[in-house]
Amino acid sequence: MRDRRSQALLVMDPVHVDVQFQEPQLRRLRDLVELTDPMATADLDDPLVRRRLREVEVLVTSWGCPPLTKERLDCAPELRAIFHCAGTVRPFVTDEVWRRGLLVTSAADENAVSVAEFTLAAIIFAGKKAPFLAQDARRHRDDWSYLERRGELSNRGRTIGVVGFSRVGRRVVERLCSLDVDILVYDPYADAAKVREAGGRLVGLTDLLPRCDVLTLHVPELPSTRHLIGAPELALLKDGTTVINTARGTVLDTAALETECARGRLDAILDVTDPEPLPASSLLYDLPNVMITPHIAGSLGSETRRMSESALDELERYLSGRPPRAVVTADEFAVSA
Amino acid sequence: MRDRRSQALLVMDPVHVDVQFQEPQLRRLRDLVELTDPMATADLDDPLVRRRLREVEVLVTSWGCPPLTKERLDCAPELRAIFHCAGTVRPFVTDEVWRRGLLVTSAADENAVSVAEFTLAAIIFAGKKAPFLAQDARRHRDDWSYLERRGELSNRGRTIGVVGFSRVGRRVVERLCSLDVDILVYDPYADAAKVREAGGRLVGLTDLLPRCDVLTLHVPELPSTRHLIGAPELALLKDGTTVINTARGTVLDTAALETECARGRLDAILDVTDPEPLPASSLLYDLPNVMITPHIAGSLGSETRRMSESALDELERYLSGRPPRAVVTADEFAVSA
Repeated sequence: MRDRRSQALLVMDPVHVDVQFQEPQLRRLRDLVELTDPMATADLDDPLVRRRLREVEVLVTSWGCPPLTKERLDCAPELRAIFHCAGTVRPFVTDEVWRRGLLVTSAADENAVSVAEFTLAAIIFAGKKAPFLAQDARRHRDDWSYLERRGELSNRGRTIGVVGFSRVGRRVVERLCSLDVDILVYDPYADAAKVREAGGRLVGLTDLLPRCDVLTLHVPELPSTRHLIGAPELALLKDGTTVINTARGTVLDTAALETECARGRLDAILDVTDPEPLPASSLLYDLPNVMITPHIAGSLGSETRRMSESALDELERYLSGRPPRAVVTADEFAVSA
Repeated sequence: MRDRRSQALLVMDPVHVDVQFQEPQLRRLRDLVELTDPMATADLDDPLVRRRLREVEVLVTSWGCPPLTKERLDCAPELRAIFHCAGTVRPFVTDEVWRRGLLVTSAADENAVSVAEFTLAAIIFAGKKAPFLAQDARRHRDDWSYLERRGELSNRGRTIGVVGFSRVGRRVVERLCSLDVDILVYDPYADAAKVREAGGRLVGLTDLLPRCDVLTLHVPELPSTRHLIGAPELALLKDGTTVINTARGTVLDTAALETECARGRLDAILDVTDPEPLPASSLLYDLPNVMITPHIAGSLGSETRRMSESALDELERYLSGRPPRAVVTADEFAVSA
């Protein structure tokens, strides 16, 4: 038993406090730690917050947490642990966090659930060319001759190329096992046995590209993944392949994709783009064989409580001396999203 | 062991012979039965076909099989069994078929797989309002203020109303278990325990309608299901509910749905309509909150081989004296698709 309850502060935009900490989550948080005034903030430089920081042991963070610089961390001498209620901790974790040996946990695993669900839906709709036929229906109305121009409309026996056996990529592979499809995976860091166990087969990128009917991207945004799929890679895809991006816009060369889609050679379902949003002048908005959604595949609304609840699980484990489930280390930080 | 190999004839449109009986399926068929010339036809009144009919014991049917009238069946005195490589046998099975005690099997179960997959994708996309946001993106381009007008964009904790615990309905319920959703089922013929086992909860229609975020229809087209979801039922749905129809157009009152969607109160994903296709003048084509696809959810292309392979399984069971797996009876015929 601890003598004193741990002092905690929520650090996130007010909207995320509202959505991620509703009555059940707040009740649970109050049972675990001491919250005072201010309970939550996105401004670590406010004098009142600075006073509070002096005693906090725990930060519960989410979207909107500012970078944890040395100067800010110097104001929090008691800080031991940061429980993040969202995906990547990249926007606010600095080298100083690692230097101090702070515990950092992430809910990236829970964030991956929504993206994987969305991607599964996108893959099934791609097999049937549904988003593009829906656009054809708007244009050609009751003249169904457009149906013949979209090729095979089927999901059985398709080859799905999954680039990146990441948290999301692995879940996409697992969910694809419910379909009768072949799953090829490219990831230079992945273990072939683990990919096989999930239901896929690990291959090289130039082996994967010419064989897939649907290509889906699940790599983090890093200098090394910028334009991982550029003009030469797109050129290796078969005619009629659908490219799905629910990862980050920069992993795909937008101009090269636009050229291929405008020619009608490739189709695309893009939840992320580069830049984001695309400029109003972008041709991609107008193409019937391109579906663009405004970065909604990740956790939104009630889905984000999957992450605050997982952060509360981690906090509970920490307080009772059990090891964390989803710790972020400096090493992992370098190669993941 | 049989003395003589059974004589068989394929009865279906030529396109389905080509798609459903490719080399592997044909090889298997020839191993099981005797095929002569003509091997396949859609015209049971052709004199050559009539001569062949005199000796056939087995019909392997698919889309395009003409009605098996008394006059046609009189030409096939040796006929014992009909193995259907598609969903409903309604277009060609007559009372005369039952009177003669012919065995009829259907691949409706396999056909349900594709519809259930498509419906799962539609439900996930509906939770995120993806098809409607994609339409917003075409219109509003880089002005993302449209995002706020679509309400909650989430799949977690949603209530999905499944009308019809049919072959497709049951599979949709089972697949929905992979999401964190509540599943309500309405079906006057379903067993509550079986629904519970699949992952849903059996409720009345007026109980289901006001609670669901997504409504999906899986009832057969029968006089009793015509406009099962009409203006009064649509009025019970919450604002912002998405109505999905992958069953048959007539189960939904098109005019009533159009009114609700035009007001922006309900959204819709329609793979089937009434009439089909909708007339070119239909407003539904133009609404940003309506996605229409041209009846593609069911088995197409390689998906239809799931059905010919299952019909071959049934044929093999029949020839070796084992009971059929998916027999169609006169009783079942009256209440299912």
